[in-house]
Amino acid sequence: MKPYKRTVQYYETDMMGITHHANYIHWMEEARVDFMEQMGFPYSRMEAEGVVSPVVELSCKYKKPCTFGDEITIGVSVESFSGAKMTICYDMQNKNGQEVCFARSEHTFLTRNGRIARIKRDMPEFCRAIERSMSNDFGAQTERDE
Amino acid sequence: MKPYKRTVQYYETDMMGITHHANYIHWMEEARVDFMEQMGFPYSRMEAEGVVSPVVELSCKYKKPCTFGDEITIGVSVESFSGAKMTICYDMQNKNGQEVCFARSEHTFLTRNGRIARIKRDMPEFCRAIERSMSNDFGAQTERDE
Amino acid sequence: MKPYKRTVQYYETDMMGITHHANYIHWMEEARVDFMEQMGFPYSRMEAEGVVSPVVELSCKYKKPCTFGDEITIGVSVESFSGAKMTICYDMQNKNGQEVCFARSEHTFLTRNGRIARIKRDMPEFCRAIERSMSNDFGAQTERDE
Amino acid sequence: MKPYKRTVQYYETDMMGITHHANYIHWMEEARVDFMEQMGFPYSRMEAEGVVSPVVELSCKYKKPCTFGDEITIGVSVESFSGAKMTICYDMQNKNGQEVCFARSEHTFLTRNGRIARIKRDMPEFCRAIERSMSNDFGAQTERDE
Repeated sequence: MKPYKRTVQYYETDMMGITHHANYIHWMEEARVDFMEQMGFPYSRMEAEGVVSPVVELSCKYKKPCTFGDEITIGVSVESFSGAKMTICYDMQNKNGQEVCFARSEHTFLTRNGRIARIKRDMPEFCRAIERSMSNDFGAQTERDE
Repeated sequence: MKPYKRTVQYYETDMMGITHHANYIHWMEEARVDFMEQMGFPYSRMEAEGVVSPVVELSCKYKKPCTFGDEITIGVSVESFSGAKMTICYDMQNKNGQEVCFARSEHTFLTRNGRIARIKRDMPEFCRAIERSMSNDFGAQTERDE
Repeated sequence: MKPYKRTVQYYETDMMGITHHANYIHWMEEARVDFMEQMGFPYSRMEAEGVVSPVVELSCKYKKPCTFGDEITIGVSVESFSGAKMTICYDMQNKNGQEVCFARSEHTFLTRNGRIARIKRDMPEFCRAIERSMSNDFGAQTERDE
Repeated sequence: MKPYKRTVQYYETDMMGITHHANYIHWMEEARVDFMEQMGFPYSRMEAEGVVSPVVELSCKYKKPCTFGDEITIGVSVESFSGAKMTICYDMQNKNGQEVCFARSEHTFLTRNGRIARIKRDMPEFCRAIERSMSNDFGAQTERDE
Protein backbone atom coordinates (compact mmCIF):
# COMPACT_ATOMS: atom_id res chain seq x y z
CA MET A 1 0.00 0.00 0.00
CA LYS A 2 1.21 3.45 -0.82
CA PRO A 3 0.97 5.99 2.03
CA TYR A 4 -1.42 8.92 1.53
CA LYS A 5 0.08 12.34 0.92
CA ARG A 6 -1.55 15.55 2.03
CA THR A 7 -0.38 19.16 1.89
CA VAL A 8 -1.53 21.37 4.78
CA GLN A 9 -3.95 24.04 3.59
CA TYR A 10 -4.05 27.65 4.76
CA TYR A 11 -7.61 27.26 6.06
CA GLU A 12 -6.39 24.41 8.25
CA THR A 13 -4.08 26.66 10.26
CA ASP A 14 -5.16 28.66 13.30
CA MET A 15 -3.92 31.83 14.98
CA MET A 16 -1.20 29.82 16.75
CA GLY A 17 0.30 29.62 13.24
CA ILE A 18 0.04 25.82 13.08
CA THR A 19 -2.42 23.21 11.82
CA HIS A 20 -5.47 23.23 14.09
CA HIS A 21 -5.69 19.84 15.82
CA ALA A 22 -9.22 19.09 14.59
CA ASN A 23 -8.08 18.85 10.99
CA TYR A 24 -6.03 15.70 11.58
CA ILE A 25 -9.37 13.88 12.01
CA HIS A 26 -10.20 14.88 8.44
CA TRP A 27 -6.83 13.60 7.22
CA MET A 28 -7.44 10.27 8.94
CA GLU A 29 -10.66 9.92 6.99
CA GLU A 30 -9.01 10.89 3.70
CA ALA A 31 -6.20 8.41 4.27
CA ARG A 32 -8.65 5.66 5.28
CA VAL A 33 -10.77 6.22 2.17
CA ASP A 34 -7.63 6.12 0.02
CA PHE A 35 -6.53 2.92 1.77
CA MET A 36 -9.85 1.19 1.09
CA GLU A 37 -9.63 2.22 -2.55
CA GLN A 38 -6.11 0.82 -2.82
CA MET A 39 -7.14 -2.44 -1.19
CA GLY A 40 -9.81 -2.85 -3.87
CA PHE A 41 -12.98 -2.23 -1.85
CA PRO A 42 -13.80 1.50 -1.85
CA TYR A 43 -15.85 2.87 1.02
CA SER A 44 -18.44 4.11 -1.47
CA ARG A 45 -19.05 0.49 -2.48
CA MET A 46 -19.69 -0.44 1.16
CA GLU A 47 -22.37 2.26 1.44
CA ALA A 48 -23.77 1.32 -1.98
CA GLU A 49 -24.23 -2.20 -0.61
CA GLY A 50 -26.13 -0.86 2.38
CA VAL A 51 -23.52 -0.76 5.12
CA VAL A 52 -22.13 2.31 6.91
CA SER A 53 -19.04 2.22 9.08
CA PRO A 54 -19.21 4.95 11.74
CA VAL A 55 -16.27 5.90 13.94
CA VAL A 56 -17.00 4.79 17.50
CA GLU A 57 -13.71 5.79 19.06
CA LEU A 58 -10.64 7.75 18.11
CA SER A 59 -7.43 9.02 19.61
CA CYS A 60 -4.59 11.27 18.44
CA LYS A 61 -1.16 11.93 19.84
CA TYR A 62 0.20 15.17 18.47
CA LYS A 63 3.97 14.85 18.38
CA LYS A 64 5.20 17.83 16.38
CA PRO A 65 3.31 20.78 14.88
CA CYS A 66 3.02 21.30 11.14
CA THR A 67 1.79 24.25 9.15
CA PHE A 68 0.67 25.67 5.79
CA GLY A 69 2.47 24.06 2.87
CA ASP A 70 3.94 21.12 4.78
CA GLU A 71 3.57 17.80 3.01
CA ILE A 72 2.36 15.10 5.37
CA THR A 73 2.75 11.41 4.57
CA ILE A 74 0.17 9.16 6.25
CA GLY A 75 0.81 5.44 6.57
CA VAL A 76 -2.40 3.51 7.21
CA SER A 77 -2.67 0.02 8.63
CA VAL A 78 -5.41 -2.19 10.02
CA GLU A 79 -4.48 -3.05 13.57
CA SER A 80 -7.34 -5.45 14.21
CA PHE A 81 -10.49 -6.69 12.51
CA SER A 82 -13.07 -9.00 14.00
CA GLY A 83 -16.03 -8.63 11.65
CA ALA A 84 -17.80 -6.56 14.30
CA LYS A 85 -15.05 -4.00 14.87
CA MET A 86 -12.07 -2.66 12.97
CA THR A 87 -9.20 -0.61 14.36
CA ILE A 88 -7.09 1.48 12.01
CA CYS A 89 -3.76 3.20 12.75
CA TYR A 90 -2.40 6.33 11.11
CA ASP A 91 1.23 7.28 11.22
CA MET A 92 1.71 10.86 10.01
CA GLN A 93 5.17 12.10 9.14
CA ASN A 94 6.59 15.31 7.74
CA LYS A 95 9.07 15.52 4.86
CA ASN A 96 12.01 15.00 7.22
CA GLY A 97 10.54 11.72 8.41
CA GLN A 98 9.62 13.17 11.80
CA GLU A 99 6.42 11.89 13.36
CA VAL A 100 3.79 14.62 13.38
CA CYS A 101 0.88 12.64 14.78
CA PHE A 102 -0.02 9.07 15.61
CA ALA A 103 -3.72 8.29 15.56
CA ARG A 104 -6.14 5.41 15.82
CA SER A 105 -9.81 5.01 14.91
CA GLU A 106 -12.25 2.25 15.74
CA HIS A 107 -15.20 1.45 13.51
CA THR A 108 -18.32 -0.67 13.62
CA PHE A 109 -20.47 -1.79 10.71
CA LEU A 110 -24.16 -0.95 10.63
CA THR A 111 -27.01 -1.44 8.22
CA ARG A 112 -28.90 1.63 7.03
CA ASN A 113 -31.52 1.14 9.74
CA GLY A 114 -28.90 1.08 12.50
CA ARG A 115 -28.62 -2.68 13.07
CA ILE A 116 -25.23 -4.39 13.38
CA ALA A 117 -24.25 -5.57 9.90
CA ARG A 118 -23.15 -9.18 9.55
CA ILE A 119 -20.07 -8.30 7.57
CA LYS A 120 -18.40 -11.71 7.58
CA ARG A 121 -21.50 -13.27 6.05
CA ASP A 122 -22.67 -10.42 3.80
CA MET A 123 -19.42 -8.82 2.67
CA PRO A 124 -16.86 -11.60 2.32
CA GLU A 125 -14.95 -9.73 -0.37
CA PHE A 126 -14.40 -6.77 1.97
CA CYS A 127 -13.25 -9.11 4.76
CA ARG A 128 -10.74 -10.79 2.48
CA ALA A 129 -9.39 -7.42 1.32
CA ILE A 130 -8.91 -6.25 4.91
CA GLU A 131 -7.21 -9.50 5.91
CA ARG A 132 -4.94 -9.35 2.88
CA SER A 133 -3.93 -5.81 3.84
CA MET A 134 -3.13 -7.00 7.37
CA SER A 135 -0.79 -9.74 6.22
CA ASN A 136 1.34 -7.55 3.97
CA ASP A 137 0.85 -3.82 4.41
CA PHE A 138 4.57 -3.41 3.94
CA GLY A 139 4.42 0.31 3.23
CA ALA A 140 2.83 1.50 6.41
CA GLN A 141 4.34 -1.20 8.56
CA THR A 142 8.00 -0.73 7.78
CA GLU A 143 7.75 3.02 8.12
CA ARG A 144 6.37 2.64 11.61
CA ASP A 145 8.95 0.02 12.60
CA GLU A 146 11.91 2.18 11.76
CA MET B 1 -36.84 39.36 14.87
CA LYS B 2 -33.87 39.27 17.19
CA PRO B 3 -30.48 39.27 15.47
CA TYR B 4 -28.34 36.15 15.88
CA LYS B 5 -25.27 36.37 18.10
CA ARG B 6 -22.13 34.37 17.53
CA THR B 7 -18.75 34.38 19.28
CA VAL B 8 -15.75 33.67 17.03
CA GLN B 9 -14.09 30.37 17.95
CA TYR B 10 -10.36 29.67 18.08
CA TYR B 11 -10.68 26.96 15.39
CA GLU B 12 -12.22 29.57 13.09
CA THR B 13 -9.07 31.68 13.02
CA ASP B 14 -6.19 31.14 10.61
CA MET B 15 -2.47 31.93 10.68
CA MET B 16 -3.24 35.51 9.62
CA GLY B 17 -4.63 35.81 13.15
CA ILE B 18 -8.18 36.54 11.97
CA THR B 19 -11.36 34.62 11.23
CA HIS B 20 -10.84 32.59 8.06
CA HIS B 21 -13.25 33.85 5.41
CA ALA B 22 -14.90 30.46 4.80
CA ASN B 23 -16.39 30.42 8.28
CA TYR B 24 -18.74 33.30 7.58
CA ILE B 25 -20.66 30.91 5.30
CA HIS B 26 -21.30 28.75 8.36
CA TRP B 27 -22.50 31.76 10.34
CA MET B 28 -24.91 32.69 7.55
CA GLU B 29 -26.44 29.23 7.82
CA GLU B 30 -26.65 29.39 11.62
CA ALA B 31 -28.32 32.82 11.45
CA ARG B 32 -30.72 31.66 8.72
CA VAL B 33 -31.74 28.58 10.73
CA ASP B 34 -32.28 30.78 13.80
CA PHE B 35 -34.32 33.21 11.71
CA MET B 36 -36.61 30.46 10.41
CA GLU B 37 -37.09 29.20 13.95
CA GLN B 38 -38.01 32.70 15.14
CA MET B 39 -40.46 33.17 12.29
CA GLY B 40 -42.27 30.01 13.38
CA PHE B 41 -41.33 27.62 10.59
CA PRO B 42 -38.03 25.85 11.46
CA TYR B 43 -35.91 24.54 8.60
CA SER B 44 -36.11 21.05 10.11
CA ARG B 45 -39.88 21.16 9.57
CA MET B 46 -39.35 21.99 5.90
CA GLU B 47 -37.16 18.91 5.46
CA ALA B 48 -39.54 16.80 7.53
CA GLU B 49 -42.26 17.78 5.04
CA GLY B 50 -40.08 16.65 2.14
CA VAL B 51 -38.56 19.87 0.85
CA VAL B 52 -34.88 20.87 0.86
CA SER B 53 -33.69 24.39 0.21
CA PRO B 54 -30.18 24.34 -1.28
CA VAL B 55 -28.05 27.45 -1.69
CA VAL B 56 -27.71 28.24 -5.40
CA GLU B 57 -25.75 31.45 -5.10
CA LEU B 58 -23.96 33.40 -2.43
CA SER B 59 -21.78 36.44 -2.02
CA CYS B 60 -19.84 38.03 0.83
CA LYS B 61 -18.22 41.42 1.22
CA TYR B 62 -15.66 41.33 3.98
CA LYS B 63 -15.47 44.81 5.48
CA LYS B 64 -13.43 44.46 8.63
CA PRO B 65 -11.60 41.46 10.10
CA CYS B 66 -12.65 39.87 13.37
CA THR B 67 -10.94 37.31 15.54
CA PHE B 68 -11.16 34.84 18.43
CA GLY B 69 -13.53 35.96 21.15
CA ASP B 70 -15.25 38.71 19.15
CA GLU B 71 -19.01 38.71 19.46
CA ILE B 72 -20.66 39.11 16.07
CA THR B 73 -24.29 40.20 15.73
CA ILE B 74 -26.00 39.02 12.55
CA GLY B 75 -29.14 40.73 11.33
CA VAL B 76 -31.07 38.54 8.87
CA SER B 77 -33.71 39.71 6.43
CA VAL B 78 -35.51 38.27 3.42
CA GLU B 79 -34.75 40.50 0.46
CA SER B 80 -37.04 38.75 -2.00
CA PHE B 81 -39.26 35.69 -2.19
CA SER B 82 -41.10 34.45 -5.24
CA GLY B 83 -42.10 30.92 -4.29
CA ALA B 84 -39.41 29.59 -6.61
CA LYS B 85 -36.50 31.56 -5.19
CA MET B 86 -35.63 33.30 -1.94
CA THR B 87 -32.85 35.79 -1.32
CA ILE B 88 -31.62 36.38 2.22
CA CYS B 89 -29.31 39.17 3.46
CA TYR B 90 -26.96 39.02 6.42
CA ASP B 91 -25.57 42.09 8.08
CA MET B 92 -22.76 41.16 10.47
CA GLN B 93 -21.51 43.68 12.99
CA ASN B 94 -18.98 43.64 15.80
CA LYS B 95 -19.61 44.92 19.33
CA ASN B 96 -18.76 48.48 18.31
CA GLY B 97 -21.45 48.42 15.64
CA GLN B 98 -18.90 48.28 12.83
CA GLU B 99 -19.86 46.23 9.81
CA VAL B 100 -17.72 43.10 9.61
CA CYS B 101 -19.33 41.44 6.60
CA PHE B 102 -22.36 41.87 4.38
CA ALA B 103 -23.57 38.71 2.70
CA ARG B 104 -26.39 37.40 0.58
CA SER B 105 -27.61 33.88 -0.23
CA GLU B 106 -30.11 32.69 -2.81
CA HIS B 107 -32.11 29.52 -2.32
CA THR B 108 -34.40 27.29 -4.33
CA PHE B 109 -36.86 24.71 -3.06
CA LEU B 110 -36.61 21.10 -4.18
CA THR B 111 -38.39 17.88 -3.41
CA ARG B 112 -36.35 14.95 -2.15
CA ASN B 113 -36.04 13.57 -5.69
CA GLY B 114 -34.66 16.84 -7.03
CA ARG B 115 -37.78 18.32 -8.63
CA ILE B 116 -38.77 21.95 -8.08
CA ALA B 117 -41.10 22.06 -5.09
CA ARG B 118 -44.38 23.93 -5.50
CA ILE B 119 -43.98 25.84 -2.28
CA LYS B 120 -46.85 28.29 -2.72
CA ARG B 121 -49.28 25.41 -3.16
CA ASP B 122 -47.74 22.86 -0.77
CA MET B 123 -46.30 25.00 2.00
CA PRO B 124 -48.64 27.98 2.43
CA GLU B 125 -47.78 28.36 6.10
CA PHE B 126 -44.08 28.78 5.27
CA CYS B 127 -44.93 31.37 2.59
CA ARG B 128 -47.04 33.37 5.01
CA ALA B 129 -44.27 33.30 7.62
CA ILE B 130 -41.72 34.57 5.09
CA GLU B 131 -44.03 37.31 3.88
CA ARG B 132 -44.80 38.37 7.43
CA SER B 133 -41.07 38.63 8.15
CA MET B 134 -40.64 40.81 5.05
CA SER B 135 -43.27 43.30 6.11
CA ASN B 136 -41.93 43.88 9.61
CA ASP B 137 -38.46 42.52 10.26
CA PHE B 138 -37.79 45.61 12.33
CA GLY B 139 -34.79 44.18 14.15
CA ALA B 140 -32.58 43.47 11.17
CA GLN B 141 -33.94 46.33 9.09
CA THR B 142 -33.37 49.21 11.47
CA GLU B 143 -29.88 48.05 12.29
CA ARG B 144 -28.96 48.11 8.62
CA ASP B 145 -30.59 51.50 8.06
CA GLU B 146 -28.59 53.22 10.76
CA MET C 1 -19.71 25.68 36.65
CA LYS C 2 -22.54 25.69 34.18
CA PRO C 3 -22.27 23.10 31.39
CA TYR C 4 -21.86 24.42 27.85
CA LYS C 5 -24.82 24.11 25.50
CA ARG C 6 -24.47 23.65 21.77
CA THR C 7 -27.04 23.07 19.03
CA VAL C 8 -25.88 20.85 16.15
CA GLN C 9 -25.63 22.81 12.91
CA TYR C 10 -26.66 21.61 9.47
CA TYR C 11 -23.10 22.03 8.14
CA GLU C 12 -21.90 19.68 10.89
CA THR C 13 -23.89 16.74 9.53
CA ASP C 14 -22.64 14.37 6.84
CA MET C 15 -24.32 12.15 4.26
CA MET C 16 -24.87 9.49 6.95
CA GLY C 17 -27.45 11.97 8.27
CA ILE C 18 -25.63 12.47 11.58
CA THR C 19 -23.04 14.82 13.07
CA HIS C 20 -19.67 14.10 11.46
CA HIS C 21 -17.30 12.85 14.16
CA ALA C 22 -14.65 15.54 13.54
CA ASN C 23 -16.98 18.29 14.76
CA TYR C 24 -16.97 17.04 18.34
CA ILE C 25 -13.35 18.22 18.52
CA HIS C 26 -14.62 21.74 17.81
CA TRP C 27 -17.24 21.43 20.54
CA MET C 28 -14.58 20.33 23.02
CA GLU C 29 -12.67 23.52 22.28
CA GLU C 30 -15.78 25.70 22.57
CA ALA C 31 -16.69 24.09 25.89
CA ARG C 32 -13.11 24.44 27.19
CA VAL C 33 -12.96 28.11 26.25
CA ASP C 34 -16.32 28.67 27.97
CA PHE C 35 -15.06 26.79 31.03
CA MET C 36 -11.95 28.97 31.31
CA GLU C 37 -14.09 32.06 31.01
CA GLN C 38 -16.39 30.85 33.78
CA MET C 39 -13.46 30.02 36.04
CA GLY C 40 -12.28 33.62 35.70
CA PHE C 41 -9.18 33.17 33.53
CA PRO C 42 -10.17 33.32 29.83
CA TYR C 43 -7.93 31.54 27.33
CA SER C 44 -7.46 34.85 25.49
CA ARG C 45 -5.81 36.23 28.63
CA MET C 46 -3.38 33.31 28.66
CA GLU C 47 -2.32 34.07 25.08
CA ALA C 48 -2.22 37.82 25.84
CA GLU C 49 0.26 36.98 28.61
CA GLY C 50 2.43 35.06 26.15
CA VAL C 51 1.47 31.45 26.76
CA VAL C 52 -0.24 29.06 24.33
CA SER C 53 -1.75 25.76 25.39
CA PRO C 54 -1.71 23.30 22.48
CA VAL C 55 -3.54 19.99 22.53
CA VAL C 56 -0.99 17.16 22.70
CA GLU C 57 -3.39 14.27 22.93
CA LEU C 58 -7.09 13.66 22.60
CA SER C 59 -9.57 10.84 22.58
CA CYS C 60 -13.31 10.51 21.92
CA LYS C 61 -15.74 7.70 22.54
CA TYR C 62 -18.81 8.16 20.42
CA LYS C 63 -21.73 6.61 22.28
CA LYS C 64 -24.85 7.70 20.42
CA PRO C 65 -25.24 9.70 17.21
CA CYS C 66 -26.80 13.15 17.17
CA THR C 67 -27.97 15.30 14.30
CA PHE C 68 -29.11 18.71 13.07
CA GLY C 69 -31.04 20.66 15.68
CA ASP C 70 -30.12 18.45 18.66
CA GLU C 71 -29.12 20.40 21.73
CA ILE C 72 -25.99 18.96 23.30
CA THR C 73 -25.00 19.72 26.89
CA ILE C 74 -21.27 19.48 27.59
CA GLY C 75 -20.01 19.12 31.14
CA VAL C 76 -16.34 20.06 31.44
CA SER C 77 -14.00 19.11 34.25
CA VAL C 78 -10.27 19.19 34.87
CA GLU C 79 -9.16 15.64 35.52
CA SER C 80 -5.55 16.45 36.38
CA PHE C 81 -3.22 19.44 36.42
CA SER C 82 0.48 19.36 37.21
CA GLY C 83 1.68 22.74 35.99
CA ALA C 84 3.30 21.03 33.01
CA LYS C 85 0.23 19.17 31.77
CA MET C 86 -3.52 19.49 32.09
CA THR C 87 -6.13 16.86 31.25
CA ILE C 88 -9.70 17.93 30.60
CA CYS C 89 -12.80 15.71 30.33
CA TYR C 90 -15.94 16.40 28.34
CA ASP C 91 -19.20 14.66 28.97
CA MET C 92 -21.67 15.33 26.15
CA GLN C 93 -25.33 14.51 26.61
CA ASN C 94 -28.45 14.97 24.53
CA LYS C 95 -31.72 16.45 25.80
CA ASN C 96 -32.84 13.08 27.14
CA GLY C 97 -29.73 12.83 29.29
CA GLN C 98 -28.23 10.11 27.12
CA GLU C 99 -24.47 10.20 26.70
CA VAL C 100 -23.57 11.18 23.15
CA CYS C 101 -19.79 11.32 23.51
CA PHE C 102 -17.16 11.17 26.20
CA ALA C 103 -13.89 12.88 25.36
CA ARG C 104 -10.60 13.86 26.91
CA SER C 105 -7.88 16.32 25.88
CA GLU C 106 -4.38 16.81 27.20
CA HIS C 107 -2.62 20.15 27.03
CA THR C 108 0.85 21.53 27.62
CA PHE C 109 1.84 25.16 28.15
CA LEU C 110 4.35 26.81 25.86
CA THR C 111 5.83 30.25 25.47
CA ARG C 112 5.48 31.97 22.11
CA ASN C 113 8.92 30.71 21.07
CA GLY C 114 8.02 27.10 21.80
CA ARG C 115 9.68 26.67 25.20
CA ILE C 116 7.87 25.01 28.09
CA ALA C 117 6.14 27.75 30.08
CA ARG C 118 6.71 27.81 33.83
CA ILE C 119 3.04 28.16 34.60
CA LYS C 120 3.21 27.62 38.38
CA ARG C 121 5.73 30.45 38.71
CA ASP C 122 4.47 32.80 36.00
CA MET C 123 0.71 32.30 36.06
CA PRO C 124 -0.24 31.63 39.69
CA GLU C 125 -3.70 33.11 39.22
CA PHE C 126 -4.46 30.61 36.44
CA CYS C 127 -3.20 27.74 38.59
CA ARG C 128 -5.40 28.78 41.50
CA ALA C 129 -8.44 29.04 39.20
CA ILE C 130 -7.83 25.54 37.83
CA GLU C 131 -7.34 24.07 41.29
CA ARG C 132 -10.47 25.78 42.55
CA SER C 133 -12.44 24.28 39.65
CA MET C 134 -11.08 20.83 40.52
CA SER C 135 -12.21 21.00 44.13
CA ASN C 136 -15.80 21.97 43.41
CA ASP C 137 -16.88 21.63 39.80
CA PHE C 138 -20.23 20.43 41.05
CA GLY C 139 -22.07 21.00 37.79
CA ALA C 140 -20.00 18.77 35.55
CA GLN C 141 -19.17 16.30 38.29
CA THR C 142 -22.63 15.44 39.48
CA GLU C 143 -23.92 15.03 35.97
CA ARG C 144 -21.21 12.50 35.23
CA ASP C 145 -21.77 10.65 38.50
CA GLU C 146 -25.44 10.04 37.90
CA MET D 1 -1.48 26.24 -16.23
CA LYS D 2 -2.83 22.87 -15.22
CA PRO D 3 -6.26 22.92 -13.56
CA TYR D 4 -6.42 21.80 -9.93
CA LYS D 5 -8.02 18.44 -9.17
CA ARG D 6 -9.89 17.69 -5.98
CA THR D 7 -11.84 14.64 -4.85
CA VAL D 8 -14.86 15.38 -2.62
CA GLN D 9 -14.34 14.03 0.88
CA TYR D 10 -16.93 12.33 3.05
CA TYR D 11 -16.63 15.01 5.75
CA GLU D 12 -17.51 17.61 3.10
CA THR D 13 -20.97 16.17 2.53
CA ASP D 14 -24.03 17.09 4.58
CA MET D 15 -27.31 15.35 5.41
CA MET D 16 -28.71 16.45 2.04
CA GLY D 17 -26.25 13.86 0.67
CA ILE D 18 -24.27 16.44 -1.30
CA THR D 19 -21.19 18.60 -0.78
CA HIS D 20 -22.03 21.34 1.71
CA HIS D 21 -21.77 24.70 -0.05
CA ALA D 22 -19.24 26.17 2.40
CA ASN D 23 -16.57 23.70 1.30
CA TYR D 24 -16.26 25.20 -2.17
CA ILE D 25 -14.64 28.22 -0.48
CA HIS D 26 -11.90 25.88 0.74
CA TRP D 27 -11.44 24.46 -2.75
CA MET D 28 -11.09 27.96 -4.18
CA GLU D 29 -8.25 28.59 -1.75
CA GLU D 30 -6.56 25.28 -2.55
CA ALA D 31 -6.80 25.96 -6.28
CA ARG D 32 -5.52 29.53 -5.85
CA VAL D 33 -2.52 28.35 -3.81
CA ASP D 34 -1.78 25.71 -6.45
CA PHE D 35 -2.10 28.34 -9.19
CA MET D 36 0.39 30.68 -7.49
CA GLU D 37 2.80 27.78 -7.08
CA GLN D 38 2.49 26.90 -10.77
CA MET D 39 3.05 30.52 -11.81
CA GLY D 40 6.32 30.52 -9.89
CA PHE D 41 5.45 32.74 -6.93
CA PRO D 42 3.98 30.62 -4.09
CA TYR D 43 1.68 32.32 -1.62
CA SER D 44 4.00 31.26 1.21
CA ARG D 45 6.72 33.40 -0.39
CA MET D 46 4.40 36.40 -0.38
CA GLU D 47 3.80 36.01 3.36
CA ALA D 48 7.51 35.34 3.95
CA GLU D 49 8.19 38.69 2.30
CA GLY D 50 5.75 40.42 4.65
CA VAL D 51 2.59 40.70 2.58
CA VAL D 52 -0.77 39.03 3.23
CA SER D 53 -3.54 38.89 0.67
CA PRO D 54 -6.93 38.67 2.39
CA VAL D 55 -10.17 37.92 0.56
CA VAL D 56 -12.33 41.06 0.53
CA GLU D 57 -15.17 39.76 -1.57
CA LEU D 58 -16.34 36.44 -2.96
CA SER D 59 -19.23 34.95 -4.85
CA CYS D 60 -20.27 31.44 -5.87
CA LYS D 61 -22.89 30.19 -8.28
CA TYR D 62 -23.73 26.60 -7.54
CA LYS D 63 -24.78 24.98 -10.79
CA LYS D 64 -24.94 21.26 -10.11
CA PRO D 65 -24.47 19.34 -6.86
CA CYS D 66 -21.56 16.95 -6.35
CA THR D 67 -20.90 14.41 -3.65
CA PHE D 68 -18.44 12.04 -1.95
CA GLY D 69 -15.90 10.59 -4.35
CA ASP D 70 -16.59 12.98 -7.24
CA GLU D 71 -13.45 14.35 -8.85
CA ILE D 72 -13.73 18.09 -9.42
CA THR D 73 -11.46 19.93 -11.87
CA ILE D 74 -10.93 23.59 -11.05
CA GLY D 75 -9.67 25.98 -13.71
CA VAL D 76 -8.21 29.15 -12.19
CA SER D 77 -7.64 32.43 -13.98
CA VAL D 78 -6.83 36.00 -12.99
CA GLU D 79 -9.65 38.19 -14.26
CA SER D 80 -8.09 41.50 -13.30
CA PHE D 81 -5.06 42.82 -11.44
CA SER D 82 -4.33 46.44 -10.65
CA GLY D 83 -1.58 46.24 -8.05
CA ALA D 84 -4.12 47.20 -5.39
CA LYS D 85 -6.70 44.55 -6.15
CA MET D 86 -6.79 41.14 -7.82
CA THR D 87 -9.85 39.22 -8.98
CA ILE D 88 -9.62 35.46 -9.51
CA CYS D 89 -12.13 33.18 -11.24
CA TYR D 90 -12.71 29.51 -10.56
CA ASP D 91 -14.48 27.23 -12.97
CA MET D 92 -15.31 23.90 -11.31
CA GLN D 93 -16.35 20.95 -13.42
CA ASN D 94 -17.18 17.33 -12.73
CA LYS D 95 -15.77 14.36 -14.65
CA ASN D 96 -18.43 14.69 -17.34
CA GLY D 97 -17.38 18.28 -18.03
CA GLN D 98 -20.52 19.68 -16.42
CA GLU D 99 -20.11 22.93 -14.53
CA VAL D 100 -20.52 22.35 -10.82
CA CYS D 101 -19.76 25.86 -9.56
CA PHE D 102 -18.47 29.14 -10.89
CA ALA D 103 -16.83 31.38 -8.31
CA ARG D 104 -14.89 34.59 -8.00
CA SER D 105 -12.71 36.06 -5.23
CA GLU D 106 -11.29 39.53 -4.83
CA HIS D 107 -8.09 40.16 -2.90
CA THR D 108 -6.14 43.11 -1.57
CA PHE D 109 -2.52 43.20 -0.46
CA LEU D 110 -1.61 44.30 3.04
CA THR D 111 1.56 44.57 5.06
CA ARG D 112 1.72 42.71 8.36
CA ASN D 113 0.61 45.84 10.24
CA GLY D 114 -2.49 46.24 8.08
CA ARG D 115 -1.31 48.96 5.69
CA ILE D 116 -1.89 48.69 1.95
CA ALA D 117 1.17 47.02 0.43
CA ARG D 118 2.79 48.73 -2.57
CA ILE D 119 2.97 45.54 -4.57
CA LYS D 120 3.98 47.06 -7.92
CA ARG D 121 7.01 48.68 -6.28
CA ASP D 122 7.90 46.03 -3.70
CA MET D 123 6.97 42.77 -5.43
CA PRO D 124 7.71 43.24 -9.13
CA GLU D 125 8.40 39.56 -9.63
CA PHE D 126 4.92 38.66 -8.36
CA CYS D 127 3.34 41.28 -10.63
CA ARG D 128 5.17 39.93 -13.67
CA ALA D 129 4.08 36.36 -12.83
CA ILE D 130 0.43 37.44 -12.52
CA GLU D 131 0.56 39.38 -15.77
CA ARG D 132 2.20 36.48 -17.56
CA SER D 133 -0.59 34.18 -16.34
CA MET D 134 -3.18 36.63 -17.65
CA SER D 135 -1.74 36.72 -21.14
CA ASN D 136 -1.62 32.97 -21.63
CA ASP D 137 -3.51 30.95 -19.05
CA PHE D 138 -4.59 28.66 -21.84
CA GLY D 139 -5.64 25.81 -19.60
CA ALA D 140 -8.28 27.61 -17.56
CA GLN D 141 -9.27 29.96 -20.34
CA THR D 142 -10.09 27.48 -23.06
CA GLU D 143 -12.03 25.32 -20.69
CA ARG D 144 -14.24 28.24 -19.81
CA ASP D 145 -14.68 29.32 -23.39
CA GLU D 146 -15.97 26.00 -24.58
